Amino acid sequence: MAVGEGKKSDARANSSGDKKPSSGGKKKEVKKETGLGLSNKKDENFGEWYSEVVVNGEMIEYYDISGCYILRPWAMSIWEEMHNFFDAEIKKMKIKNCYFPLFVSESVLQKEKNHIEGFAPEVAWVTKSGETPLEKQIAIRPTSETVMYPYYSKWIRGHRDLPLKLNQWCNVVRWEFSNPTPFIRSREFLWQEGHTAFATKAEADAEVLEILELYRRIYEEFLAVPIIKGKKSEHEKFAGGLYTTSVEAFIPNTGRGVQGATSHCLGQNFAKMFEINYEDERGEKQMVWQNSWAFTTRTIGVMVMVHGDDKGLVLPPKVASVQVIVIPVPYKDANTQGIFDACTATVDILCKAGFRAEADFRDNYSPGWKYSHWEMKGVPLRIEIGPKDLVNDQVRAVRRDNGAKLDISRANLIEQVKEMLDSIQQSLFNAAKQKRDTCIAVAKTWDEFMVALSQKKMILAPWCDEEEVEKDVKARTKGEMGAAKSLCSPFDQPELPEGIVCFASGKPAKKWTYWGRSY
Amino acid sequence: MAVGEGKKSDARANSSGDKKPSSGGKKKEVKKETGLGLSNKKDENFGEWYSEVVVNGEMIEYYDISGCYILRPWAMSIWEEMHNFFDAEIKKMKIKNCYFPLFVSESVLQKEKNHIEGFAPEVAWVTKSGETPLEKQIAIRPTSETVMYPYYSKWIRGHRDLPLKLNQWCNVVRWEFSNPTPFIRSREFLWQEGHTAFATKAEADAEVLEILELYRRIYEEFLAVPIIKGKKSEHEKFAGGLYTTSVEAFIPNTGRGVQGATSHCLGQNFAKMFEINYEDERGEKQMVWQNSWAFTTRTIGVMVMVHGDDKGLVLPPKVASVQVIVIPVPYKDANTQGIFDACTATVDILCKAGFRAEADFRDNYSPGWKYSHWEMKGVPLRIEIGPKDLVNDQVRAVRRDNGAKLDISRANLIEQVKEMLDSIQQSLFNAAKQKRDTCIAVAKTWDEFMVALSQKKMILAPWCDEEEVEKDVKARTKGEMGAAKSLCSPFDQPELPEGIVCFASGKPAKKWTYWGRSY
Repeated sequence: MAVGEGKKSDARANSSGDKKPSSGGKKKEVKKETGLGLSNKKDENFGEWYSEVVVNGEMIEYYDISGCYILRPWAMSIWEEMHNFFDAEIKKMKIKNCYFPLFVSESVLQKEKNHIEGFAPEVAWVTKSGETPLEKQIAIRPTSETVMYPYYSKWIRGHRDLPLKLNQWCNVVRWEFSNPTPFIRSREFLWQEGHTAFATKAEADAEVLEILELYRRIYEEFLAVPIIKGKKSEHEKFAGGLYTTSVEAFIPNTGRGVQGATSHCLGQNFAKMFEINYEDERGEKQMVWQNSWAFTTRTIGVMVMVHGDDKGLVLPPKVASVQVIVIPVPYKDANTQGIFDACTATVDILCKAGFRAEADFRDNYSPGWKYSHWEMKGVPLRIEIGPKDLVNDQVRAVRRDNGAKLDISRANLIEQVKEMLDSIQQSLFNAAKQKRDTCIAVAKTWDEFMVALSQKKMILAPWCDEEEVEKDVKARTKGEMGAAKSLCSPFDQPELPEGIVCFASGKPAKKWTYWGRSY
Repeated sequence: MAVGEGKKSDARANSSGDKKPSSGGKKKEVKKETGLGLSNKKDENFGEWYSEVVVNGEMIEYYDISGCYILRPWAMSIWEEMHNFFDAEIKKMKIKNCYFPLFVSESVLQKEKNHIEGFAPEVAWVTKSGETPLEKQIAIRPTSETVMYPYYSKWIRGHRDLPLKLNQWCNVVRWEFSNPTPFIRSREFLWQEGHTAFATKAEADAEVLEILELYRRIYEEFLAVPIIKGKKSEHEKFAGGLYTTSVEAFIPNTGRGVQGATSHCLGQNFAKMFEINYEDERGEKQMVWQNSWAFTTRTIGVMVMVHGDDKGLVLPPKVASVQVIVIPVPYKDANTQGIFDACTATVDILCKAGFRAEADFRDNYSPGWKYSHWEMKGVPLRIEIGPKDLVNDQVRAVRRDNGAKLDISRANLIEQVKEMLDSIQQSLFNAAKQKRDTCIAVAKTWDEFMVALSQKKMILAPWCDEEEVEKDVKARTKGEMGAAKSLCSPFDQPELPEGIVCFASGKPAKKWTYWGRSY
């Protein structure tokens, strides 16, 4: 599945359920005045705040089918930025785009037993067209391993057909019933899924990490969200695969880890089931080694959860479809036309320099309303131009992330805007990383673990790496908030002291592993 | 629906049915030698030829669910070229991308009666997830008018919310049972669908034509396929819309017109059903004017049908993912390494100059096999480099479209390759246009019409523009090959002589209209 969604997760209470945001009564005076603002606070009522911010920020519209959401242009443009980056990178790796059908026949879907067990409960089935029942029911792809691999078997004959490296950008459907949340957990989502086949395990292993590094860059360089790279446990790995690597993000407000994207080595298991063989240089039959990997629109939700604040969305400049919003601030007796012209000129200069800039000339809203509006939408930089600015041949720039104001001479506009946007991008990452790091706790005993869990930490603990112990941790931590599970064993392993034991079983520890509740 | 597929078309015999291509016995000696080549000829057995060429050209793989096809990278890259062009153009028009759900609830789907009548028989229904029956069955979008417009109603309040201009790139499903054909008629296909709302009819009218011009450019400038721009008859217009414009292509081999893409003015009909109103400048409630428009992966099939030949695909340079294939032609005693180096250098030079060029260095195929292989795949220009070329510091360029050979001094490589590719692009269009034009017949009487129809012509006839007469034409031409219908009334109308009568009814003619069988 190359999945970006947590599988096998426990049912649990989740405050960010599929409720439409309420327009509750906590609005402040200033918000009433502008008609904008959020009625929920991020630190007080995170779930409601999230639902409200994605709607008021015009990213999402709730849809009349539960668990399905409308991605409005404000969200879609972020997806397009990530798409453009990732698509160009994988093309450099000679991975080619294709498109396989949305539908899978039942018999093919069920070919890999572990795999289908992971997906069966949430497969949507088409059983009729018009008024006519179909002879055989047909599944909508929850992922495309079983859709694609019968054809890999057909296309791969000899060693010269390898590697076969395909990717597709598409929608997939997983009819989950628990806790639908915009972007994070939806019944239909958009993703890319890469499916590659190699002659050797070494090539497959290398690609797994190369792709994982692209996922890290999407999170850290584009979305300014710090992640941890690591390997999933046997219990949490992709159903039917050999091993799963992932980038793991963390949401401090809920104390939940969130699987950001996954890059799986499938080993030879699917190759065996689908008979994907090739003749090697010596004329001997061999099985291929396969990978699959994916990231989804979930990325956008993680970004919103990490950076958003009580004024609304906060978008990192690299993915914001509007990086700079220019707002005229005319006064009664001022040179209004001069101000408007200066705004237009500013937008032109910035756009020509490659920035994404717009002016808001609407005459039915006050500057103050516009400030709130564009803060809600998370535009990284606001430029105000008033009479004084006009006289001084300057503009006033205001950062969305920290509210800092700077008067910029128009002569230095391009350089200073570039500097400020770069600084915002970096500051967002630094602030998120600092906050995330304060949420990491080391626990060497069960008691320490339980204390940290109650404090909503992401917990780094020495572990014996036994599946039974992980199941036991889940069982022992079950509760209203949901059970804890392993998130990943980080590639960047701290030293494991001599004789250190597993926090849960007391057996000799084999590695450090992150644990916590998760989405 | 903004549909690129012919609706309401009669059931008919169609030789290009969903049969996998046979590997029939007509192979010539040379083809046996190379193991390549087509066993069907375009002029002898068009349907079989088409099925074979899309598979052997590695565009399509047949899928185990009838009417669904795998788009391989060789086809997908063409879609991406069109996507990139069109997406950039509509962004200039301030149209924004979004993504609405795949699923529609039954009640919403049925809101516009004429509309649903057009689609109901081919809607695929999801009725269960896992083993659990859904409370209410859910449709898969055949098009997104009814998915989107309830939200247009919500988002549009005042005149400042207009125009609202959205587009999405997605898959849609129409579970047709007749004549599945790769690209041309499939149960799932890819498209873009634009949905816009305006305050005035004038703005909507203007956009309809602006989009139609982009569709013309896709066909004529990218795919080198000549089209006719025009208006559909009342009988053939989009179900629920006000009027439909289209670009109409023609397939000489089958004598069938093919609706290339459509740009609909929906008028205010959907606005009425979905209550999409706004308050105008005077505070009065008004209904919006709407358009929808789409082009689909059908475009690729039209291109294949028009340009392909008995050697395989013929790709126009503007959409070919490989424009130039460089093939080393070493001889026993020749400087093989020198030849290989020259090939690599040639590819580098061309790629740096912005061409899409590759070399085929495979050591297990002969140059002759490679020629056939890349001819099958339709690469516009082949460059051969042998010992003589090396000595003379030249390359030999061979055109796919007409086989013309030219020795090019390496000093002039970039200029001459550019010239040849431009020439191929233009020649393909000219040849296709010339062929198409010879298929156009003017018929002023029923007898002339029937003769022309039997000759597989696209027939330009004076028409009274009455729906009953069109139905009558359909009824009277029903037969094994399918009935004739109106294709479009061209915008470019020849003069209508005084007193001329309708070819079918004898009533006074109101306009010239194209008629014929169609896909």
